[in-house]
Amino acid sequence: MSRHKVVIVMGSDSDFPVMKEAVEVLRHYDVDVTVRVLSVHRCPDEALKLARNAESDGYRVIIAAAGRAAHLAGAVAAHTVLPVIGVPIESGPMKGVDALYSTVMMPPGVPVATMAIGGSRNAAIFALEILATSDDDLRARLHEYRRELAAKVLEKDRKIQQELE
Amino acid sequence: MSRHKVVIVMGSDSDFPVMKEAVEVLRHYDVDVTVRVLSVHRCPDEALKLARNAESDGYRVIIAAAGRAAHLAGAVAAHTVLPVIGVPIESGPMKGVDALYSTVMMPPGVPVATMAIGGSRNAAIFALEILATSDDDLRARLHEYRRELAAKVLEKDRKIQQELE
Amino acid sequence: MSRHKVVIVMGSDSDFPVMKEAVEVLRHYDVDVTVRVLSVHRCPDEALKLARNAESDGYRVIIAAAGRAAHLAGAVAAHTVLPVIGVPIESGPMKGVDALYSTVMMPPGVPVATMAIGGSRNAAIFALEILATSDDDLRARLHEYRRELAAKVLEKDRKIQQELE
Amino acid sequence: MSRHKVVIVMGSDSDFPVMKEAVEVLRHYDVDVTVRVLSVHRCPDEALKLARNAESDGYRVIIAAAGRAAHLAGAVAAHTVLPVIGVPIESGPMKGVDALYSTVMMPPGVPVATMAIGGSRNAAIFALEILATSDDDLRARLHEYRRELAAKVLEKDRKIQQELE
Amino acid sequence: MSRHKVVIVMGSDSDFPVMKEAVEVLRHYDVDVTVRVLSVHRCPDEALKLARNAESDGYRVIIAAAGRAAHLAGAVAAHTVLPVIGVPIESGPMKGVDALYSTVMMPPGVPVATMAIGGSRNAAIFALEILATSDDDLRARLHEYRRELAAKVLEKDRKIQQELE
Amino acid sequence: MSRHKVVIVMGSDSDFPVMKEAVEVLRHYDVDVTVRVLSVHRCPDEALKLARNAESDGYRVIIAAAGRAAHLAGAVAAHTVLPVIGVPIESGPMKGVDALYSTVMMPPGVPVATMAIGGSRNAAIFALEILATSDDDLRARLHEYRRELAAKVLEKDRKIQQELE
Amino acid sequence: MSRHKVVIVMGSDSDFPVMKEAVEVLRHYDVDVTVRVLSVHRCPDEALKLARNAESDGYRVIIAAAGRAAHLAGAVAAHTVLPVIGVPIESGPMKGVDALYSTVMMPPGVPVATMAIGGSRNAAIFALEILATSDDDLRARLHEYRRELAAKVLEKDRKIQQELE
Amino acid sequence: MSRHKVVIVMGSDSDFPVMKEAVEVLRHYDVDVTVRVLSVHRCPDEALKLARNAESDGYRVIIAAAGRAAHLAGAVAAHTVLPVIGVPIESGPMKGVDALYSTVMMPPGVPVATMAIGGSRNAAIFALEILATSDDDLRARLHEYRRELAAKVLEKDRKIQQELE
Repeated sequence: MSRHKVVIVMGSDSDFPVMKEAVEVLRHYDVDVTVRVLSVHRCPDEALKLARNAESDGYRVIIAAAGRAAHLAGAVAAHTVLPVIGVPIESGPMKGVDALYSTVMMPPGVPVATMAIGGSRNAAIFALEILATSDDDLRARLHEYRRELAAKVLEKDRKIQQELE
Repeated sequence: MSRHKVVIVMGSDSDFPVMKEAVEVLRHYDVDVTVRVLSVHRCPDEALKLARNAESDGYRVIIAAAGRAAHLAGAVAAHTVLPVIGVPIESGPMKGVDALYSTVMMPPGVPVATMAIGGSRNAAIFALEILATSDDDLRARLHEYRRELAAKVLEKDRKIQQELE
Repeated sequence: MSRHKVVIVMGSDSDFPVMKEAVEVLRHYDVDVTVRVLSVHRCPDEALKLARNAESDGYRVIIAAAGRAAHLAGAVAAHTVLPVIGVPIESGPMKGVDALYSTVMMPPGVPVATMAIGGSRNAAIFALEILATSDDDLRARLHEYRRELAAKVLEKDRKIQQELE
Repeated sequence: MSRHKVVIVMGSDSDFPVMKEAVEVLRHYDVDVTVRVLSVHRCPDEALKLARNAESDGYRVIIAAAGRAAHLAGAVAAHTVLPVIGVPIESGPMKGVDALYSTVMMPPGVPVATMAIGGSRNAAIFALEILATSDDDLRARLHEYRRELAAKVLEKDRKIQQELE
Repeated sequence: MSRHKVVIVMGSDSDFPVMKEAVEVLRHYDVDVTVRVLSVHRCPDEALKLARNAESDGYRVIIAAAGRAAHLAGAVAAHTVLPVIGVPIESGPMKGVDALYSTVMMPPGVPVATMAIGGSRNAAIFALEILATSDDDLRARLHEYRRELAAKVLEKDRKIQQELE
Repeated sequence: MSRHKVVIVMGSDSDFPVMKEAVEVLRHYDVDVTVRVLSVHRCPDEALKLARNAESDGYRVIIAAAGRAAHLAGAVAAHTVLPVIGVPIESGPMKGVDALYSTVMMPPGVPVATMAIGGSRNAAIFALEILATSDDDLRARLHEYRRELAAKVLEKDRKIQQELE
Repeated sequence: MSRHKVVIVMGSDSDFPVMKEAVEVLRHYDVDVTVRVLSVHRCPDEALKLARNAESDGYRVIIAAAGRAAHLAGAVAAHTVLPVIGVPIESGPMKGVDALYSTVMMPPGVPVATMAIGGSRNAAIFALEILATSDDDLRARLHEYRRELAAKVLEKDRKIQQELE
Repeated sequence: MSRHKVVIVMGSDSDFPVMKEAVEVLRHYDVDVTVRVLSVHRCPDEALKLARNAESDGYRVIIAAAGRAAHLAGAVAAHTVLPVIGVPIESGPMKGVDALYSTVMMPPGVPVATMAIGGSRNAAIFALEILATSDDDLRARLHEYRRELAAKVLEKDRKIQQELE
C-alpha cells in the first residue's frame, strides 16, 4: 500500500516554527508530507492552484495555517472537497483570536476543521484520525499513541506525589 | 458496500433544532445517522460509553454539539481515536463564544475539529468529506454539491442584477 | 466625461438590505454602480474573476461586504490593485465582530479599507472621496454633502432646545 | 478528630508552580492534601476514577486546576457530589479567559465553584471555609487569618504614609 | 437536628426572577432560606451588617447575586468567613460578562465561589454540596438528585431516537 | 446665589431617550440645564465652539454622550478645562463597548470622567457631586438622596421577605 | 485660603508605582495629598471608615485605584457624596479590562468617574478640574497646563519634520 | 506632472517607529510625504487646522495614526473630504483593540478607511492605490509590487521545500 499524502500550507514562513511539530508527527506516522508557503493574499493564484490540484495530486488531507485575518484555510476549502484542517496562528496584537474567528466562522457549505490557536500537533493528529478511518494499522497506532499520552501523564502524577510526600 | 455510519451526540435536546440540519444533510447523502442526547455532566457514564464503543459499533465519525462550558466534544474525543467534529451551540448570555473556546482550545494530543458557532450543516459536510477520503462515489457527490452551491449563488447574483437595472 | 464606475460585491443576498444604502448614495452622485452577489467560498472562481477583471472593466473602486469569516474583501484585494473598501456585516452570534477582524487584520502588502460594522453608507461616501481625488466637481458636491450633514444635526439641535425650554 | 482530607488535581504538571500555593496554605491549616496530575483528555479513566472514589476515599473537597479548554473541574464535578473548586490556569494566547469560560459556564445541576484565573490561594481558602462550616476551631483560625490579612495591609498603609510625609 | 440555614442576598429585586430557582431548590431540600434585597452600593451598611452577622445568626452559606459592576458577593465575602457563592446576573449591554469579571477576579485571601452567569440553580446545588460535607442524609439526597438528572437526559435520549427512527 | 449651569451635549438626537433622565435629575436639583445635539464628526465647528465657550458661558460641568466611535466627550475635553463627564451610549452591534473604550481610554493630560454604558442618571449625580464640592446645601441634598436610595432598597427588601414567608 | 485636600486610596501597595504620578501632579498644584493603602476586601472596615469620614476630614475629592475585581472605588463611592475618581489598574491576565468593567459599570445612584486603565495622571488632572470649578487661580493654572501640553507636542512635531527633511 | 502629496499625522512621536514604514514606502514610490505629530486632544487647534487646510495645501490623501481612544483619524475626517486612512496603534493594556474600535466605528457620513492594528505599510499601499486611480504609471508600479510580493513568498516556498526534503 502506498503511503498517505498530506500537504501543509502556511501563509508565511514565520509560521513554520509552529507548524514544524505537525510535520514531525505526520512523518513519525509514515505520512508523506509536503510543506508549502503560499499566501492567499500575496500569491493567490499559486495558493488556489494547490487547493484545486490537491485531490488529483493524491493528497488526502490539507492542513492550512495562518495568522491575523487568516483566510488561507477557508480559501483552500473553497477549492477542494478534501478535508481541510485550519490552524489559527498566534501573531500580532490579538494573539490569534482574530485568526481563530477568521478560520472557524465559515459559511454553510464550506467547512474548515479548526484546531486551537497554535494547535499544530493536533492538526497532525486529526489528519491521522481521518486517514485512520480507512487504515486499520494506523488506527491501531493511534490507540497506542493515546496509551503513551496517558502513560506520560501518569508518570508525572507519580513523580509529583513522590516529591510532595 | 454497507452504508457509512455517523453518530451525532448533543448535550441537550434543546440543541436539536440546530443539529437537525446535520441529520438531514447526512441522510440526504445516504449516511446511517444515530442521534443521541447525552450530557457529559449529567449522564457522564452513558456519554463516555458511547465514545468508547463508537469504533466497535461501526461508526466512522462522531459529531458532538454543546453550548456554554461545552465539554462534550472534548470528552468524547478523549475516549476515541475516531475523528470528532465539535459544534459550539449559541446559547446563554455569551452567545456561544464560551462554547467555542471550550470546544476548540483542546490540549495537544486530543483534537476536536471545531465548526462555526451553530455550524450544524458544516459538521455534516465535513463528516462527508472525511468519509469521502475512502469513497470515490461520495467524493463525486460532494463535487456536485459544490457546483450546486455555486449555482445557487450565481442565480441570486443574476436576480439582484436584474432587479437593480 | 464618462461616469465613474464602482462595483459592490456581497457574499450573500442577505447582505443586500444593508448594502442598498451604498447603492442609493452612489447613484445619487451619478456613479454607475454594479451590484454582484458572489461568495468567495461558494463560487470562488466567479468572485475572483470579478476582482481580476475589475480594472480592465473600467471600475475605479470595489466595495466588498461580508459577514462572519468575512474573506471576500481580502480575497478581492488579493486580485486587484484597485482600492477595495470592506464592509463587515452584522450577522450571527458574534454580531459582526468576527467579520470586522476578518476584514481589517490584513497582512502587509494587501490592504482593505475597512468601514464600521454595517457601514454601508460610509463605504459609498469613501468611494466618492476616492473618486473625488481626481474630480473637482465631485469634490465640491462632497463639501456640499458635509454642509447638509451639519445642517441636519443643527436642525435637530434647535428642535431639542425648543422642546426642552 | 482525624484531619480533613482535600485532593488537588491538575491537568498538567506545568500547573504546579501555580497550585503549589494552595498546597502550602492547606498544609499550614493541617489539612491532609493529596496532589494529583491527571488530564481528563489524556488519561480520562484515571481522572474520573479519582472523582468517583473521592468521597469513599474520605476527601471532603476537590480542587481542580486546568488551562485552555479547561474541562477537568467540570468532568470531576460530573462524577461526585463533593464540592468541586475550579481554578482556571493562565496559559496560552488567551491568558486563561478560555479556561475561565470553560470552568465557570457549567450547566444546571453540576456546579463548579470557580476562582479567579490563577486563584490558587483562594481555592485553598475557600476549601477551608467549606471545611470550617463543621469545624469551629478551623473557623476561628480563618477569623485569625482575616485579621492578619488586614494587619498586613494596614502595615503597608502606615509605611507608605511615612514615606510620603 | 435543626435545619440548615442559607441566606440569599440580591443587589436588586429585579434579580429575583433569576434567583427564585435557588430558593425553590434549597426549600425542596428542607433548607431554611432567607431572601434579602440589599445593595452594597445603595444601602451598604445593611448589606455589610448582614455579612458580619451571618455566622452568629446561624447561616452556614451565603449566596450573593448581582449584575454589572457586581461587588455584592465580594463585599459580603470581605465581612465573613462563611463560604460565599456568587451569581453574576445577566443584565445591561454586557450581558453579565461585566458581572462575571467583577465577581470572580477576587484578590488573594477573600474568595468568592463563582457560578455561571445566571447560575441560580447551581448556586443552590453548590450550597447543598457544602452543607452535605457534614450531613450524610443530604449527601445521599444529592446522589439521588444526580441519578434523576441522568434519568431525565436518558429519557430525552430515548425520545429523540424514537422520533428519528 | 445664581443657579448652577450644566450643559449636556449628545452626538445624535437618538441618544436623547437615554439622556433625558440626566436632564430630569439635574432639573430636580435646580440646576440650569442646556441640552445640545452636536456631532463632533458632522458639525465639528459648532461642537468645538460649545466646548471652547462653555467656561465663559458660565457652565460649570459638561456632560457628553455618544455611541460607537464616541469621540464627542474627548473632543470637548480637549477644548476646555471644565470637568467633562462622558456617557457611552449603547448602540449598534457592539452594544456600547466600542463607545466605552473610545470614551475612557483618553491619553494623559485630557481626562474624561466616564460613566457606565447608558449611565445617564449617574452622569447627572456625578455633576451634582462636583457642584456640591462648593455648595453645602446641594451636598446636604445629595446626602438626602442617598438616604432615599437606601430606603427604597430596604422597602423592596421588606416586601420580598413578606412575599416569601 | 487653605489648601485643597485630596485623598488617594489604593487596594494594594503594588499599585503605587502607577499612582505615584497622581501624587506628584497634585502636589505640583499645591494640593494637600493623603495616600492610603486600604483594601476593601482585606481591611474593609478601615477602607469604609476612610470613605465615611472623608467629607468631615476636609477632603474634597477621592481617587481610588484598584486592579482585577476592582471594588474599591465603588465601595468608597457608596459611603460618600464626594466625587470619587476610579483608576482601573493593569494587573493580572486580563490586563485591567476586569478592573475597568468592575469600576465603570456602577448602578444608578452611585457614580464613579472612571479614568483609562492606568490613568493615574488623568485622575489627578480631573481632580484639579473639579477643584478648579470653585478656584479661579487653579483654573488659570490648568489653562497654562494645557498650553504646555500643546507646546510639547508642537515641539516634537517640529523635531520630526526637521529629521525627515 | 508634479508629485503626489500625502500627509501622515500621528497622535504621538512614540507612534513614529511604526509609521516610519509608511513614510519609506510612499517615498519609494516618489510621493511627497509630510509627517506631522499633532494630538487632537493635546493640540487640537493645530491638528484640525492641518485637516481643514490639507486640500488647499495640495494633499491628496491623509494618513492618521493613533493609539488607545484613537480619535485623530475621525477628527481629521470630520474636517476634510479628502480620503482619510486610519491606523490603530498597538499601545497600552488593550494592545490596540481600543484604538481599532475608536477608529473604525465611525458614524454615517464621515468615513475613516481603517487598516489593521499597526498596519503602517498597508496605509501607504492603500494611499498609493487611491492615487493610482488617476495615475496609470503608478498603477503599473503597483502591479509590479504585487508581482514582487508573490515572488518573495514563492522564493520562501522553494526554500522551505528544499530544506525539508
